Amino acid sequence: MNNLQNKKILIVGLGLIGGSYASALSNKGYYVGAVTKDSSSIEYALKHNIIKEGITNPSKEFIEKYDFVVFALYPKIFVEWIENYQQYLKSGIVITDVTGIKSEIVYKIQTILRKDIEFIPAHPMAGREVYGVENSDPNLFKGANYIITPTSENTPEAVDLARKLGEILEFKSISILTPEEHDEMIGFLSQLTHCIAVSLMTCKDSRYLVDYTGDSFRDLTRIAKINEFMWTELFLMNKNQLLSQMDLFLKQFKELRDALAKEDEEKMKEIMRLSTERRKYFDKKESD
Amino acid sequence: MNNLQNKKILIVGLGLIGGSYASALSNKGYYVGAVTKDSSSIEYALKHNIIKEGITNPSKEFIEKYDFVVFALYPKIFVEWIENYQQYLKSGIVITDVTGIKSEIVYKIQTILRKDIEFIPAHPMAGREVYGVENSDPNLFKGANYIITPTSENTPEAVDLARKLGEILEFKSISILTPEEHDEMIGFLSQLTHCIAVSLMTCKDSRYLVDYTGDSFRDLTRIAKINEFMWTELFLMNKNQLLSQMDLFLKQFKELRDALAKEDEEKMKEIMRLSTERRKYFDKKESD
Repeated sequence: MNNLQNKKILIVGLGLIGGSYASALSNKGYYVGAVTKDSSSIEYALKHNIIKEGITNPSKEFIEKYDFVVFALYPKIFVEWIENYQQYLKSGIVITDVTGIKSEIVYKIQTILRKDIEFIPAHPMAGREVYGVENSDPNLFKGANYIITPTSENTPEAVDLARKLGEILEFKSISILTPEEHDEMIGFLSQLTHCIAVSLMTCKDSRYLVDYTGDSFRDLTRIAKINEFMWTELFLMNKNQLLSQMDLFLKQFKELRDALAKEDEEKMKEIMRLSTERRKYFDKKESD
Repeated sequence: MNNLQNKKILIVGLGLIGGSYASALSNKGYYVGAVTKDSSSIEYALKHNIIKEGITNPSKEFIEKYDFVVFALYPKIFVEWIENYQQYLKSGIVITDVTGIKSEIVYKIQTILRKDIEFIPAHPMAGREVYGVENSDPNLFKGANYIITPTSENTPEAVDLARKLGEILEFKSISILTPEEHDEMIGFLSQLTHCIAVSLMTCKDSRYLVDYTGDSFRDLTRIAKINEFMWTELFLMNKNQLLSQMDLFLKQFKELRDALAKEDEEKMKEIMRLSTERRKYFDKKESD
């Protein structure tokens, strides 16, 4: 079971990520099919040799052909899909996902899933500010991180299979984290940064300043263009972790604000020195 | 007076910005001299044809040769220099600066300056996370904004002269703002963004997350490597404006936080939609 060779792979949800999985896998010679809600996505994917076949309405006949399934859906829709259609899945197979939050989804899926099928959760940390299979890119994952988040329910064989998938997609690094470690990490590195970017972008109508905008403002707001449906769902499903991370940031931002208000020069310099010191660790990796 | 041709130009303070002014002006055939505190900076600049001559101790004999003077000093040192050495400046000349905050410095300099010399304030919005004349670059200003901030004390001729300097240095755009407009703009676009980056970098020891760091965290903390002496001085000299901008951001960040805490999906989506909408204005300029 720990090899994907000669396996037929089904992608459920042919958006940017699902489409990029399909595209990369097809390029490497895998037989890839898709289930997705829009027929236009299937037409596009067939025309561009991203998939061999696709359907919009899940059917047993179609789905039971596949030996490995990747769910690239919004979290809630993923759960609904399993509830409604899991009886169509071939017995004994492994399924995986691409969901950006883990604790809230992983245990739920593992609980409701048929016991003859194993779910190994994973998160490809890659994305674009564009959507849909039309923007899919077989090279999207080169240089990115792939996180596998097994639970005590998972077998070493399924973890190996997920790792194999990460290797085929050419991720730069593949790591194992618990669902909880993953969610803390993603709450800080990704969700908090999006909250900051969105708040900076919306705290005042800065349009009249556009001619004066330099790199710092552009860098900080690049991710302020945001899919409100996906991110609201992800934030809510990681609510407690994200609130903790937001509160850490708030506390520190207020500390700097109060040091400025009190003209506490030493405190301000101390914060800036720590900032410079800590940023250096991330520099080293920048030259990777 | 509205032409720099055949004028000898003195740079006071040969750091990254002063050095880049000197380098660009020398490349265009101007006679450039420097006064700066370290003899090593002068040696470097002479060796690399960035200046024709330089001294570390201001003298009348040296300084009165120059027809135009650019002050590239920290704000407080700029005021001290004028207080201590302005008697050495040639009568009738125009001087300018590169200071990153305006209200606190412009009126002070114009008040204490000899009446036979005119100070036209300007701010080249360019920089690097490196320092010193050794890192100077004659192309530093290409693509950047140059802001002239005249007061009612200034003559149109001096404004023209500053504009001419901006053209020689090949800034992408040259604008006129009041010192107050400048400080509000810089408080929001530059100082607030640095406060955010520093707070994100220092709110927790994130070193253990370095392997998972993607573009969003790197983008938001690139400017967290910060010269604590310069930025503390700039923040304090723009204290009221910066506090206003920080409070705007704080209010909005808390609003998003509270919407998440209350699971107010509609509010969260509304903020994200506004964010996406507003970010678009800045996109257009990105392709310039």
